[in-house]
Amino acid sequence: MSLSIKLHVTTSHLNYLNHHAKTNTNTNTSNIRTKPIYTSNPLIITTSRSRKMSLGSYGAPFIKSSLIEPDGGALVDLVVPESQRGPKILEAEALPKVKLTKIDIEWVHVISEGWASPLRGFMREDEYLQSLHFNALRLKGNGSLVNMSLPIVLAIDDQTKEKIGNSSNVGLLGPSGDCIAILRSIEIYKHNKEERIARTWGTIAVGLPYVEEAITPAGNWLLGGDLEVLKPIKYNDGLDNYRLSPKQLREEFDGREADAVFAFQLRNPVHNGHALLMNDTRKRLLEMGYKNPILLLHPLGGFTKADDVPLSVRMEQHSKVLEDGVLDPETTIVAIFPSPMHYAGPTEVQWHAKARINAGANFYIVGRDPAGMGHPTEKRDLYDPDHGKKVLSMAPGLEKLNILPFRVAAYDTSENKMAFFDPSRAKDFLFISGTKMRAYAKSGENPPDGFMCPNGWKVLLKYYESLQTEESPQQPAVLSA
Amino acid sequence: MSLSIKLHVTTSHLNYLNHHAKTNTNTNTSNIRTKPIYTSNPLIITTSRSRKMSLGSYGAPFIKSSLIEPDGGALVDLVVPESQRGPKILEAEALPKVKLTKIDIEWVHVISEGWASPLRGFMREDEYLQSLHFNALRLKGNGSLVNMSLPIVLAIDDQTKEKIGNSSNVGLLGPSGDCIAILRSIEIYKHNKEERIARTWGTIAVGLPYVEEAITPAGNWLLGGDLEVLKPIKYNDGLDNYRLSPKQLREEFDGREADAVFAFQLRNPVHNGHALLMNDTRKRLLEMGYKNPILLLHPLGGFTKADDVPLSVRMEQHSKVLEDGVLDPETTIVAIFPSPMHYAGPTEVQWHAKARINAGANFYIVGRDPAGMGHPTEKRDLYDPDHGKKVLSMAPGLEKLNILPFRVAAYDTSENKMAFFDPSRAKDFLFISGTKMRAYAKSGENPPDGFMCPNGWKVLLKYYESLQTEESPQQPAVLSA
Repeated sequence: MSLSIKLHVTTSHLNYLNHHAKTNTNTNTSNIRTKPIYTSNPLIITTSRSRKMSLGSYGAPFIKSSLIEPDGGALVDLVVPESQRGPKILEAEALPKVKLTKIDIEWVHVISEGWASPLRGFMREDEYLQSLHFNALRLKGNGSLVNMSLPIVLAIDDQTKEKIGNSSNVGLLGPSGDCIAILRSIEIYKHNKEERIARTWGTIAVGLPYVEEAITPAGNWLLGGDLEVLKPIKYNDGLDNYRLSPKQLREEFDGREADAVFAFQLRNPVHNGHALLMNDTRKRLLEMGYKNPILLLHPLGGFTKADDVPLSVRMEQHSKVLEDGVLDPETTIVAIFPSPMHYAGPTEVQWHAKARINAGANFYIVGRDPAGMGHPTEKRDLYDPDHGKKVLSMAPGLEKLNILPFRVAAYDTSENKMAFFDPSRAKDFLFISGTKMRAYAKSGENPPDGFMCPNGWKVLLKYYESLQTEESPQQPAVLSA
Repeated sequence: MSLSIKLHVTTSHLNYLNHHAKTNTNTNTSNIRTKPIYTSNPLIITTSRSRKMSLGSYGAPFIKSSLIEPDGGALVDLVVPESQRGPKILEAEALPKVKLTKIDIEWVHVISEGWASPLRGFMREDEYLQSLHFNALRLKGNGSLVNMSLPIVLAIDDQTKEKIGNSSNVGLLGPSGDCIAILRSIEIYKHNKEERIARTWGTIAVGLPYVEEAITPAGNWLLGGDLEVLKPIKYNDGLDNYRLSPKQLREEFDGREADAVFAFQLRNPVHNGHALLMNDTRKRLLEMGYKNPILLLHPLGGFTKADDVPLSVRMEQHSKVLEDGVLDPETTIVAIFPSPMHYAGPTEVQWHAKARINAGANFYIVGRDPAGMGHPTEKRDLYDPDHGKKVLSMAPGLEKLNILPFRVAAYDTSENKMAFFDPSRAKDFLFISGTKMRAYAKSGENPPDGFMCPNGWKVLLKYYESLQTEESPQQPAVLSA
């Protein structure tokens, strides 16, 4: 199933890339770096403002930045410089090996680029316990706290533990058996899955997507250590150019002379309610006196549950939203956040926010029930829909981030458009949930006019159509059973 | 069952009180207060040192204190002064009422005396969420964190919620229907039991004692607000004189000119391994340069699980330990910590430590698997036995407390006494767990000589004997069934 969809979308997406490469001539974001990797991101459109650049005290050029400081003071970057790769690869080959899952690799990606700064590898037990109990890590230097709500851990089984023996370093293997990283000064400790799940999700009900995918089948040990990544993680799915690292994003924001960066995390298609909210946020920031607020539209790119819209489709949909002018390309950067999704509500939303601090965002938009889902076994939301934004505003280590709670947007039937909900005329408003939106698309039915830009909606329709074509061969078999 | 045991023990205990009242003539701990309530605590034996006292700038006498500062800077005291009780009681009578359980009253006691300082009542939702997610509360003034690992909440059911209606204050009823407190500026919010249990215990397995006693049968709403207690909470069980408030303990420590206070939390009889540890701690503190370290031997007095030794028996046992000279009465204070027990391991041990800061302790002794128990449904410890002390040493808000990890003590068969475990001759050591100790006492068998002082052991034997006498009438019925 996924292959044909992906090919379809990727082709369409590549056409889109080509289209933009032709029409957008000013994609080079810096004239001091030769062809930076991210200049081919078609959704980054640089402004015509001149850049402030100067020579640092050591003669190296740098961009003066007023962006929010990354957690721990400096962005972690664990990718081995090209010049040092040869000997490291040789060294890695001689080490005991640990085979990574797809989600493990997403975490290697996340850690290596500094999204989890100041974390420098998979958590050792002291970091794991702090994360699990306090959602925060204490900095060794000054004792202050940085937020870290999700345990970022690597599970191994008994056999792998035995194989590692007393080695203090191990090599980490990618899907094709290639060594992609070294984990140094390792520590192996128990993986109490029940406790990890209960404290992270506030339930141990069967059916939590991340748990079923990444914890239940995992081993009973956790392996912590310092990470060295032998070369940048790539997925070769046609979307790597959208995967800007925190460093690249910061350079982009600096390049645009952003004086405020507001991040919007999402794992769903963008409808006009989202757009209203993002545009309204920009307006509010301008009213607050900011001169050049930049929106980071930041879809999550790692593991998502089976019935979520796949990344490639979402990226194509997002590109239509910008093409159709629903969001302003001049003040918007679309990039992919490489983390896997936990669906852990108030605990996870902290991670979503914290990672964006590291990418330079000083404002974070939070909605109703962030990172939430239905309870897997009971007829209710897993989390109180208001807890996410409350917990976010209380979280240790996020004090420097400005939390912008959502105003609720819904479809205003009196004006045929998405608008902020007005309780004085509640009956005029229609709430269209993600589930309802998917139901529309699946049935081929159109949502009310003005719910989503037409070209964005077509992307979804096309996806669900192709899904049904794929699923249909199985239907007779099921019916005849 | 419990009644006859309690009467028996209480009688014996009263004899003990009388005995001490005769032999110990110097029980008055302060000559500026007339008959302070705690002077009748027979386990407080004042030293002969003179007190430093001076007149404060407003002419009021105070004791110069170098004790650790309570959380939030000042001890909370929510007991209404006697002069104001009349009108408050009248006011309370007119309010909607909430009937408290036994455990609720223990929490009223705990909150009212400032053990949970700076908490001033049952938690509102913002405090509940901070406690649940971060084990800490942010102070409104300076934004710093104080530890608060257990949600201290009051559950109500739908009917009670309806009865309260829009009232902003409610009266809290004791077991006999008397109004014992007012809760002001209340807030009612959802009691998501599953999430509360999962995040507090790291499991939702059936059979957690506190959950079964106080959460499963409780209502689906939580009621937060500011507490005013109409008169000090008393239990009239012959042990109230041991229930020293944090304020009273601080006065006692100051009276003794303690320059270090080390607290030992326990819910089990004291054996010679405990005593070794406490005496060794005092020695270490003296070596560190402290001149007068005082031990706070602080048995937990609230709810405990059915197979734990009851408080009255433990108190009698502790008194024998002091009588027999295993602990030095000159440098020891025995008092009751009024909190109920959660058996929530690493989460609960923080509460145990935090509450003792408020009572003036700047050193906290922590052992293997504090507040732990067996997993209710699996054959393993519920918590990793090392996590308690690790989590304690990391916990936000406990930075000012010195954590003293246990050295493991066991029965040294080569010397017939409890000694610190020496791994180089491991085979000489016998580990006698609480379960094993109870098994000895139940069977009437004596543990090895030197395990516990003989008079302390007799207290336990007597208790388990009486238990069997009580249980025996039921046995034929069971056998004939």
